[in-house]
Amino acid sequence: MEKFDIHILGCGSALPTTRHFPTSQIVNVRDKLFMIDCGEGAQLQFRKSRLKFSRLNHVFISHLHGDHCYGLLGLISTLNLLGRTAELHIHSPKGLEELLTPMLDFFNRQMSYKVLFHVFETKEPVLIYEDRSLTVTTIPLRHRMPCCGFLFAEKPRPNHIIRDMVDFYQVPVYELNRIKNGEDYVTPAGETIPNHLLTHPADPPRRYAYCSDTICLPSIVGQIQGVDLLFHEATFAEEDAPRAGETFHTTAAQAAGIAKAAGVKRLLIGHFSARYEEETVLLQEASTIFPDTLLAKETLCVSV
Amino acid sequence: MEKFDIHILGCGSALPTTRHFPTSQIVNVRDKLFMIDCGEGAQLQFRKSRLKFSRLNHVFISHLHGDHCYGLLGLISTLNLLGRTAELHIHSPKGLEELLTPMLDFFNRQMSYKVLFHVFETKEPVLIYEDRSLTVTTIPLRHRMPCCGFLFAEKPRPNHIIRDMVDFYQVPVYELNRIKNGEDYVTPAGETIPNHLLTHPADPPRRYAYCSDTICLPSIVGQIQGVDLLFHEATFAEEDAPRAGETFHTTAAQAAGIAKAAGVKRLLIGHFSARYEEETVLLQEASTIFPDTLLAKETLCVSV
Repeated sequence: MEKFDIHILGCGSALPTTRHFPTSQIVNVRDKLFMIDCGEGAQLQFRKSRLKFSRLNHVFISHLHGDHCYGLLGLISTLNLLGRTAELHIHSPKGLEELLTPMLDFFNRQMSYKVLFHVFETKEPVLIYEDRSLTVTTIPLRHRMPCCGFLFAEKPRPNHIIRDMVDFYQVPVYELNRIKNGEDYVTPAGETIPNHLLTHPADPPRRYAYCSDTICLPSIVGQIQGVDLLFHEATFAEEDAPRAGETFHTTAAQAAGIAKAAGVKRLLIGHFSARYEEETVLLQEASTIFPDTLLAKETLCVSV
Repeated sequence: MEKFDIHILGCGSALPTTRHFPTSQIVNVRDKLFMIDCGEGAQLQFRKSRLKFSRLNHVFISHLHGDHCYGLLGLISTLNLLGRTAELHIHSPKGLEELLTPMLDFFNRQMSYKVLFHVFETKEPVLIYEDRSLTVTTIPLRHRMPCCGFLFAEKPRPNHIIRDMVDFYQVPVYELNRIKNGEDYVTPAGETIPNHLLTHPADPPRRYAYCSDTICLPSIVGQIQGVDLLFHEATFAEEDAPRAGETFHTTAAQAAGIAKAAGVKRLLIGHFSARYEEETVLLQEASTIFPDTLLAKETLCVSV
């Protein structure tokens, strides 16, 4: 399987604790790195992860709360000190460029590279990134300000050719792409060789959904149906459910309910409130509803 | 001795490493906390130190480079989340308020307390803080932009009364303050009782000098003469002395030379370049010239 890993750089919420950094993750898809949210200290945690800064080209900011974007100034400045030349793309709801530009201009008099800001609307899912093997689509959430999650989806890959069979049937090279894409082969004599004799199926495309911060929002279930891994915020325990509602956050049990309703393969919970000395209670409450639940923690790496 | 401690929150330089946070320190004078510089992650390190946020009322920013002030946004926001009501005073060279205010206004729609910015000139020493027991004075430095260090000086304290002697000579209460301040006592019969029979001398006032970032600057020696503890930046080793000059930084040996010339009691070096895997070379080079040298490191607490 090709690499598709989630590295947790921070999984606390707005108040710092001695155990957690604010929110940030790195998604590593075949050694292309994508950052999701960039709380204070994200660049420090990034460095600790031993992943390479140079492989990061896109940053996705879910919403403009400080604990999700205060780390951008430091990250952008550090990449400049390192002499980066490649453009850095920052995708967010509107407003970020106007806020950051005066500070970036002041603190980085000479930039070695360009920072390009891209604004996405937050009401409907939008395709905001696409390359040969991956798409990133927003997941509209409901928080105290415009906010989206992100769905990382591998594109379906062509089947793998079975070399011996292709040789046996003397398939010409120009037929191979069609066969990789699932078509049968018809020999010059008119015999049809079914595709399954010529190929192994490719690994099914994988999907990762990131949902933070949001009030419990069943309307996302359709979009994240059956994803391989769902990160969902679980700021509060059940006893604080009223507080979750007031602050437009989710409880661990609610996150598990979403995971169950969406039939996801695994659930990873994070964005823990500072009020919990440790998060066992959150894991227990979620696991009761959705057993395949993991607790996020700094330095954790999960393969999708 | 009353408390006068330096807590190192970060002692790296601009490029983050896996070992160091950017610059920040807490000076604890009798449980009043003062922050010097506030690099990214300072609030996280502050929290780890187990010192109380509520005891911090003054932040001193040496200069407007990102690695010395990117942590302010997070710190100010967190104090707001905690419902702080006391004013927070931020002292810096000019420009900081204009840079931070738009972001603070956006990210903290409702502030529970006031942030008051105070600008100091950087050419001459200026008294920027004073209370009953302490003064803070700027130390003009020379860097790539206006920059000052800070001299924390305890005020001289009154002598301690020797209760038994005061009783023996039947000194009236209204004479005690004069005696604490060093005067002799004249009895009604005209006999002079010398002060040293009536008091123990107070502990001598202590001084802490913080100097970062600067090119090696012998002109500071007069102002920091004989301080109990000198923090001096030591970004580079001797082999990188040319680089130190170009970037307006100091080598460890140069810092030790300043400490020696100023006759300080102890030297603490920090602001280490990311190029050194560990800082033994810096300690060795400094110690050769000034033996009482300590290496800064995160979580280190040094009593002045």
